[in-house]
Amino acid sequence: MDFIYPSRSELQTHLHALPSDRIIILCDQNTQRACYPKLNVSFPCIVVPPGEASKSFDTLEYVIDQLTALNADRSTLLINLGGGVISDLGGFAASIYLRGIRFINIPTTLMGMVDASLGGKTGINFQILKNYLGTFTHPNQFIVCPDFLDTLPERELVSGYAELIKHALLIGEQELQSVLNIIPQALTPTEWLPIIQRSNQFKWEVVQADFRESGLRKQLNLGHTIGHAIESIMMSTSSPLLHGEAIAVGLWCAIHLSERRTSFDTQLAQSVKTYLKDVFPVLSLEEKVLNQIVELSLKDKKNDQDTRLMVLLSSPGEVVLDVPVSDDEVYSALYAYLNHTT
Amino acid sequence: MDFIYPSRSELQTHLHALPSDRIIILCDQNTQRACYPKLNVSFPCIVVPPGEASKSFDTLEYVIDQLTALNADRSTLLINLGGGVISDLGGFAASIYLRGIRFINIPTTLMGMVDASLGGKTGINFQILKNYLGTFTHPNQFIVCPDFLDTLPERELVSGYAELIKHALLIGEQELQSVLNIIPQALTPTEWLPIIQRSNQFKWEVVQADFRESGLRKQLNLGHTIGHAIESIMMSTSSPLLHGEAIAVGLWCAIHLSERRTSFDTQLAQSVKTYLKDVFPVLSLEEKVLNQIVELSLKDKKNDQDTRLMVLLSSPGEVVLDVPVSDDEVYSALYAYLNHTT
Repeated sequence: MDFIYPSRSELQTHLHALPSDRIIILCDQNTQRACYPKLNVSFPCIVVPPGEASKSFDTLEYVIDQLTALNADRSTLLINLGGGVISDLGGFAASIYLRGIRFINIPTTLMGMVDASLGGKTGINFQILKNYLGTFTHPNQFIVCPDFLDTLPERELVSGYAELIKHALLIGEQELQSVLNIIPQALTPTEWLPIIQRSNQFKWEVVQADFRESGLRKQLNLGHTIGHAIESIMMSTSSPLLHGEAIAVGLWCAIHLSERRTSFDTQLAQSVKTYLKDVFPVLSLEEKVLNQIVELSLKDKKNDQDTRLMVLLSSPGEVVLDVPVSDDEVYSALYAYLNHTT
Repeated sequence: MDFIYPSRSELQTHLHALPSDRIIILCDQNTQRACYPKLNVSFPCIVVPPGEASKSFDTLEYVIDQLTALNADRSTLLINLGGGVISDLGGFAASIYLRGIRFINIPTTLMGMVDASLGGKTGINFQILKNYLGTFTHPNQFIVCPDFLDTLPERELVSGYAELIKHALLIGEQELQSVLNIIPQALTPTEWLPIIQRSNQFKWEVVQADFRESGLRKQLNLGHTIGHAIESIMMSTSSPLLHGEAIAVGLWCAIHLSERRTSFDTQLAQSVKTYLKDVFPVLSLEEKVLNQIVELSLKDKKNDQDTRLMVLLSSPGEVVLDVPVSDDEVYSALYAYLNHTT
């Protein structure tokens, strides 16, 4: 897989050098409007609605149908132009279409640049179960052009930042401290670039060491057991969350549990938890919703049968995998989150 | 991947040694009735209707839904008990469920034993396009128990035999001559075993050398460019064909074209063509259907853009890959098939 970090004009040059008659672009209505014109190309586009609801069986079928209508064959190259929804959906479609065609990810969101579009996990949701179907397939190229961050609504930018914080927690104390000083809304694309590259390098090393998540890679699920459950439950409400917004709460709970279960330093935990509540939207959750979160977090696909296994930290950069966590402990972490004031 | 060729009692012993609480069986209504009882186990079953129509998006969604309802997790082992439809569908479901769980193929048809359940190609059809979606994923075990052939209707047995003839054509003159003497309806399971094993060994060597079909493996598509088109077209008529019945016509045409394009010996071609017409049902095809077959064979996923590329033979065991074949040549081969008398 090639990593490419072009400016916008370098990106245009790169795309013009590809065999243009075999390229199809997958985008959503937002990236079609805000990002596609910046490519300065005229490739056929498959356009889906923006948002998590497009990671569905129905939309997958639509994409396959459109690929067929455009006569896509084994020499076709699919370019996924968008955030994590587009690279998850498009990567999955490409990995099963004719049992696999080539694809390129060009993430246009911070979430895509630091997490979703890198690592080879493709997939869609099933009912309310997140990423329940998919494959492990790397794109042929991973192209990060930070200029696209200028097209991004602030809420989307902040959401993606949650995964950067997760990576910083996993990298170590120094990276964590540098991240705790960032005001994400204030950075320019040029300032984002080295931070994204450090994050990419860390994730890529972990993924290469354990592509199919039998061990080491599990650390990347930090914050996701509870975070995914929250995201799934809120998806069907009138106020759905962005992925990173849910993960920020999941990270908050994981740090809280790490203090209690794996001796994470309490003072540092307090700084991280306060920072998370400052940067991300603060949720209020009804009792009924808490019950659903606890129940659904047991359905997480990383669990072994009927035990909830979570990733915790003993300190920044020191992960403890497969920690069994009870329903009561999850309740307790969620209540602490709700009652925590900064 | 393990190859296992047990008797029925050895199969029972083998299955009883597996971790029974993590096993789910996928079967169709026929194999549930005729084959499942012979296993002497009590694993939960997911049952789908028999036949090619189950290789659909809808049935895939049903299987996924049932796996979820049975709480299948990453430690679950799916056993595909049935013919090619079951191993294609179940292998695909297993390869994408939670991004991949383990599975075992226990083919119960000759077609499954010699071809469909071995080789790592999983998939479903899309609209009328055969095997348009899928993955390359080997089962963890491939278990051939020839005793199941006793449960098989004669028409199914003969259908599977088409792929054995294909393998014999690809192996060489000696294997071909021995196959041309077989009356498939007359063999006992014990007599089938060595023939199946030779066929499996040949296919496995080809697949290992070129898993993703970038070269050598393409030879296994002998007879399939036209055969798949015929199968797809007939699927929506009142007299659908079994896969092997369509492939037998495809092989007939491929041999006919090999005489003209790649100097296949005319006398031997005559023997093979006569044998194919003796053993398999003889089709009559209307002009309208011929047009559809010619058109659809251009949609074959092995084609490069807009050229129909076929596998032909210069002699048994000597393949010529990627031979461009015109519409007129396909028409001509189909007319020759219709007019040929043995």
